[in-house]
Amino acid sequence: MTERARHLDAADPLGHFRERFAVPEGVIYLDGNSLGCLPKATPARLEQVVREEWGKDLIRSWNSASWIDLPQRVGAKIAPLVGAQPHEVIACDSVSVNLFKLISAALAMRPGRTVVLSEPGNFPTDLYMIEGLEQQGLAKRRLAPRDELAGALDDDVALLLLTHAHYKTGELFDMIALTRAAHDAGALVLWDLSHSGGALPVDLAACEADLAVGCGYKYLNGGPGAPAYAFVAERHQAALRQPLSGWMGHAKPFAFSDDYSPAPGVDRMLCGTPPILGLAALEVGVDLIAEIGIAPLHAKSQHLSEFFRQCLAESGVELELVSPADPARRGSQLSFRHPQAFAICQALIARGVIGDFRDPDILRFGFAPAYLRFADMAEAVRNLAEVMQTGEWQRAEFGERGAVT
Amino acid sequence: MTERARHLDAADPLGHFRERFAVPEGVIYLDGNSLGCLPKATPARLEQVVREEWGKDLIRSWNSASWIDLPQRVGAKIAPLVGAQPHEVIACDSVSVNLFKLISAALAMRPGRTVVLSEPGNFPTDLYMIEGLEQQGLAKRRLAPRDELAGALDDDVALLLLTHAHYKTGELFDMIALTRAAHDAGALVLWDLSHSGGALPVDLAACEADLAVGCGYKYLNGGPGAPAYAFVAERHQAALRQPLSGWMGHAKPFAFSDDYSPAPGVDRMLCGTPPILGLAALEVGVDLIAEIGIAPLHAKSQHLSEFFRQCLAESGVELELVSPADPARRGSQLSFRHPQAFAICQALIARGVIGDFRDPDILRFGFAPAYLRFADMAEAVRNLAEVMQTGEWQRAEFGERGAVT
Repeated sequence: MTERARHLDAADPLGHFRERFAVPEGVIYLDGNSLGCLPKATPARLEQVVREEWGKDLIRSWNSASWIDLPQRVGAKIAPLVGAQPHEVIACDSVSVNLFKLISAALAMRPGRTVVLSEPGNFPTDLYMIEGLEQQGLAKRRLAPRDELAGALDDDVALLLLTHAHYKTGELFDMIALTRAAHDAGALVLWDLSHSGGALPVDLAACEADLAVGCGYKYLNGGPGAPAYAFVAERHQAALRQPLSGWMGHAKPFAFSDDYSPAPGVDRMLCGTPPILGLAALEVGVDLIAEIGIAPLHAKSQHLSEFFRQCLAESGVELELVSPADPARRGSQLSFRHPQAFAICQALIARGVIGDFRDPDILRFGFAPAYLRFADMAEAVRNLAEVMQTGEWQRAEFGERGAVT
Repeated sequence: MTERARHLDAADPLGHFRERFAVPEGVIYLDGNSLGCLPKATPARLEQVVREEWGKDLIRSWNSASWIDLPQRVGAKIAPLVGAQPHEVIACDSVSVNLFKLISAALAMRPGRTVVLSEPGNFPTDLYMIEGLEQQGLAKRRLAPRDELAGALDDDVALLLLTHAHYKTGELFDMIALTRAAHDAGALVLWDLSHSGGALPVDLAACEADLAVGCGYKYLNGGPGAPAYAFVAERHQAALRQPLSGWMGHAKPFAFSDDYSPAPGVDRMLCGTPPILGLAALEVGVDLIAEIGIAPLHAKSQHLSEFFRQCLAESGVELELVSPADPARRGSQLSFRHPQAFAICQALIARGVIGDFRDPDILRFGFAPAYLRFADMAEAVRNLAEVMQTGEWQRAEFGERGAVT
């Protein structure tokens, strides 16, 4: 495996991009789908924002350093990565907060309909934000397994809310087919791109998506708790009313009027004062992913995960794959089921192979294609095989569950 | 004035704290109430978070660097600055987003009542967030001038939402009297401490406040767009339900359950993944303000603003003061009305004296007591007098209004 990995790395057209990330020594990082690596350009950019823009120019930087435009500027750079127009995407708040804004806006655009349809086992915050509106008396949550979603679309459904790549299994939804089914039923669609944006092709325009959100700290490498992004299709922008109507989403924030009047376009998605440190770091990550390009990232992602599976097959380790076997049907990850997934994950982390565990029994390996090597795949599998064959995961220190893994 | 200022600075027990901030050369910064100065310790702390915690330890830092506890840890440090218990305050999201959570929660705690009472001219985002809930059909906004608020409290009022120190004039509300009046009418009170927390004494416990929010980037020096904070009195925590029920506010976020179950205590105010860079910078600012102490900061704040007024009187400049003349009745600022306030503000900025303009005719000078000197007061007034006496503010380049001043 090692020899083959060396050849694959030597031939990898993206191989040199690894140098642009601060990948720590002695670590094989298979968790870029949870927190992306630090781009080497980020510390210097943050230093500039903090020491120069904040420290020296102070309040003037809202204009002179264009802080005030950062949500739009970063959004416009994310847009082509997800098949949107620059004025359809804005970077702000968290995924959760943006979900609330857009679920609420969708309900207002479909008067008489109150159901928000999703699948059980969707990423928890997506389901919880529907519950928030349910608690307000404004929505009803309906869950249907993914193969029964089309049948659950009826006249009561205002919105179909789905995550493109499932966080546990990586299984992809067919965005075109499901968006069409929802539209045929008179519903809108809100896509959560957290586990796909920045690693796989997403084409919001081609599937005629209405609304979307995505995460800044996974494949976009924006740093821990980075701002998220929100997409509103141009055709919906004029009618969109979202209830987190803060001053930065006002048509004239500095007129200090008592009455709210929404800004034109996607700007009305803004609420409070934009988090400048977070946005500046996110911009560096987005620039780097845009420079590499989604198509080559996707090709390498598929190649990496298939090579991982080959290595695993040759190693003789048997693990139940819960991700789709067809790389075209999964995100940039492979997940396996094992009753001792937690302990195995901990034993691997002790060896410097960082994957993650998802309750109750999922061992998840993410393949961020921008900075991983084929050699990392071979080495990760070698360690996994040793952990399984020696049974070292059964040692006591690997048996307890921590809060965040 | 200059001589007197020198004596006052020499005798100032807080004078040495100026060295702990990166106050730029050649600038007299009277806008710390809009964006606080950079603490000198902040760049190194951010460097550590970015290069070490993110760059090297990656996902493990959620546990090993206690990222997961940052909202609570920073909140607990803010708590004593506003008269709260450590477990009653949490740092998260923006002021606007926290207003939405708490207005909504208050309405749910007062079933049958739908009115949220505030004053016209309150900071816009406070009024706009009420409108957001109004647009959802869940609230009615009622505005009454400050001297008529008590009379406007009737059986329909669920919540009284006021800003302690007015952003334009600095005028303070009597928190004890108004909270009592609201409670007598069966309403809850939500105090916005954005323009007072960190500069003046605030005693949420003494006034039996129910709910509060405050800003991280003004007197707390957390940086541009820093996370905000939210306060929920212990007695309300168990019943509080806020609709932005994201995964970080769940009792067990890493159980990945389909159903929301709020975390105990103030933790249920959390929504999405915490913004680590912003929280880390905020913590440095909060630590520094806590080290100096609110009582000495307040004493110096009053001394600075009174000295500014003395200098102004001696300079012969006549400007209409719109802030209360009694320092006990105002925040850490002085505001003046002038039909050409914008142009005067621009002319001062060109001279390195940074105050700010608030539409339509307010010239606002903020006195962040942690890093300003009495010499700055004398020098600011000398410049103001020259600008007024020479009429240089009438030059064309100072006449146009920019977006952010």
